[in-house]
Amino acid sequence: MCAQLLSTHPYKGTRDFYPADMKLRNWFFGKIRAALELASFEEYNGPMLESLEMYIAKSGEEIANEQTYNFSDKAGRRLAVRPEMTPTVARLVAAKINELNFPLKWFSIPNLYRYEAPQRGRLREHWQVNVDIFGCDTYEADLEVISTAITLLRAFDADSSMFKVHINNRRFFNDVIASIAGTDAEGSRRVSKVIDRKNKVPREVYEKDLVALGLDGEKIAKIDALYQMGVEEAAALCPESRGAQELLDLFEALRELSLDEYCVFDFGIIRGLDYYTGTVFEVLDEAPENNRAMFGGGRYDNLVGLFVKNTNVSGVGFGFGDVTLENFLVTHNLIPDIYSEGVKVLVTKFDDVPYTEYTKLVTKLREANIQSSIYIGSKKFGKQIDYAVKGNYSHMVIMGSSEFNEGKLKIKDLRSREETTVDAEKLTDYFA
Amino acid sequence: MCAQLLSTHPYKGTRDFYPADMKLRNWFFGKIRAALELASFEEYNGPMLESLEMYIAKSGEEIANEQTYNFSDKAGRRLAVRPEMTPTVARLVAAKINELNFPLKWFSIPNLYRYEAPQRGRLREHWQVNVDIFGCDTYEADLEVISTAITLLRAFDADSSMFKVHINNRRFFNDVIASIAGTDAEGSRRVSKVIDRKNKVPREVYEKDLVALGLDGEKIAKIDALYQMGVEEAAALCPESRGAQELLDLFEALRELSLDEYCVFDFGIIRGLDYYTGTVFEVLDEAPENNRAMFGGGRYDNLVGLFVKNTNVSGVGFGFGDVTLENFLVTHNLIPDIYSEGVKVLVTKFDDVPYTEYTKLVTKLREANIQSSIYIGSKKFGKQIDYAVKGNYSHMVIMGSSEFNEGKLKIKDLRSREETTVDAEKLTDYFA
Repeated sequence: MCAQLLSTHPYKGTRDFYPADMKLRNWFFGKIRAALELASFEEYNGPMLESLEMYIAKSGEEIANEQTYNFSDKAGRRLAVRPEMTPTVARLVAAKINELNFPLKWFSIPNLYRYEAPQRGRLREHWQVNVDIFGCDTYEADLEVISTAITLLRAFDADSSMFKVHINNRRFFNDVIASIAGTDAEGSRRVSKVIDRKNKVPREVYEKDLVALGLDGEKIAKIDALYQMGVEEAAALCPESRGAQELLDLFEALRELSLDEYCVFDFGIIRGLDYYTGTVFEVLDEAPENNRAMFGGGRYDNLVGLFVKNTNVSGVGFGFGDVTLENFLVTHNLIPDIYSEGVKVLVTKFDDVPYTEYTKLVTKLREANIQSSIYIGSKKFGKQIDYAVKGNYSHMVIMGSSEFNEGKLKIKDLRSREETTVDAEKLTDYFA
Repeated sequence: MCAQLLSTHPYKGTRDFYPADMKLRNWFFGKIRAALELASFEEYNGPMLESLEMYIAKSGEEIANEQTYNFSDKAGRRLAVRPEMTPTVARLVAAKINELNFPLKWFSIPNLYRYEAPQRGRLREHWQVNVDIFGCDTYEADLEVISTAITLLRAFDADSSMFKVHINNRRFFNDVIASIAGTDAEGSRRVSKVIDRKNKVPREVYEKDLVALGLDGEKIAKIDALYQMGVEEAAALCPESRGAQELLDLFEALRELSLDEYCVFDFGIIRGLDYYTGTVFEVLDEAPENNRAMFGGGRYDNLVGLFVKNTNVSGVGFGFGDVTLENFLVTHNLIPDIYSEGVKVLVTKFDDVPYTEYTKLVTKLREANIQSSIYIGSKKFGKQIDYAVKGNYSHMVIMGSSEFNEGKLKIKDLRSREETTVDAEKLTDYFA
């Protein structure tokens, strides 16, 4: 058909999902979907191709251009393969802002593409669970979102030794920094930028940058101290801050609901300076070999405003990817044997029995809601056994011409290796 | 944040899925996934971005370039947003050809993009169910695939008055045309091309083209007659054809399995000349207003050969899109009221009861596997009722300060309008 053979590799940084991979993904997303629906979150989705300008408006021309797959269509529209779901969900909310039933509790499990160097836990594409609440700007929504994050991990039997939710508040962060530094708004913004880069530069550079902004050693020490504090001690530094009060309310509610064992106040959580406006949090894997943020989220207030004038629909939410989740589940041994569960029956065949006699058996099994297949290949019986074993079938139904003439069947349990002869009429009773 | 507001419209020819839309899609794909798994089909998936050369190898440079969204990455790799799943699945099969457990019964529900003018039932993107069997080149696989197509529609309670499977065989088509026309292989190919265009040109043009290829009026009449024939009559015209025998075997098995009421032999089904090699079929909606092919499929033999030398893994399968399926279900009134099924509880709130008392109730409900939410907005009770009704909640749990002090709750059934007072401790018993 063509002289040169095509490559069988998927495009760099993307993945193929063979049935075993897909079964795993369906299993964990199925659990997540069920847990979210139980909590009355509703699923939405949007197109893979979106207008590039949405990502430019949110993240700037350079990031949008460099980190997305983007191109122009024949009419010159600039499109991106969506790199994240937040602009899409903001667009959906904006488009029906006068019809929707606020507060919204929404989730989505989109496939996302980012143009970046592939690395562990961060391919060029992944599937990402996005959970958001729109239209509630008080701590109750933050609580619901954080408790949902905990619920999702508990659905896999993860416990508080395996993960922790690290929580901060951007309003509190701004207020306490301004109060310690004694700077005006612009000065505080500059100090915040230095603090945001704290872990990315040597300690001397960090201190030098703060000194340049007018902070002395005492002030720097005060900021250092915040990283060691519990939530009450930190909040007490700036009691008039709305962010401090939000933190106190949130942590008190978490205690009331016995969720405090999963949560810690962490002044180090900032999550980018320009986007989040209130509560921010990350779920960290406690395993040292996997020690990174699995879930990240928080409150953002301005996204819907990109689409609709004079509106401010507050949002709070989080996201996490399939790769990160799978790493966590594997590390903590939380994936059961999903491949050899339940009944799955292979009806084997012989050439001296009419083929439709076998298809009738399969039809009966399926009508009784028993997962089953006829062997449709052309190999001999021995190979049909191999096929059944390799295909994780639990049972084989065997009907040679002598059984067929007597109206009988053999059923072989491939796990226990027991073989039973039954009346053909009673095939489905065996599995009842 | 930016001076000019962004558009809230999705990109032309693509769709947003709000929760009601998504619920419908999840409902029908859920039924399809369950029916396919019951029949031991296994789900796979692959990346949205694939090498453009796969589509060029299958469909030619022009179609691949014109009808896909394609672009180059920074390393100059030519990529396409996948327009169909078949090259991907052929690639997956080829990559593990020595490990896989043939015959494979595989399915996928990918999102696909085609660059074409949007029209009813054919947007620029859709979700497509793909069902394939690889590694069985006899009619048994054709039978399994066709009976699966019927099973999927029957899962929605569709009956044989609503759809029919129109079946032909490309081997039979080639053989019977050659036999009537008396032409050699090349001549028959030319005749086939004319017949393939039969419904797209005026009758005079069709006849003139056949006459130019040496067919007289008698031969043309013989070809016309084929369109009216049943399968036995047609097969008898060319009894030595392997395709004729495959048709007879297939239809006999369909009769044996009582599936013949869903199936008709239709000489008009060709489905493109270069791709299919044996059985071809289309499922047609019987409703006159929707009268088009819903499912299309058949046997193709050469795809895996694009990736691996000296191999011939025969495939047979079909595909259908979500838009087409939804049109069918709507037309035949096959969608039940999926929006107001089951129990869904809203816990309302009052300011004079501690908030965490409500969150504790919701936690209890969810632990008892009852879909529920707390009202997290800031509106008064009357608006909370509106929220519950608009959100399709079946029940409201009401606990004002007087009920709270007495350890009681009111439960309001929003469908029957009945209100019941229960002990707070017995909340979940009410729903048991």
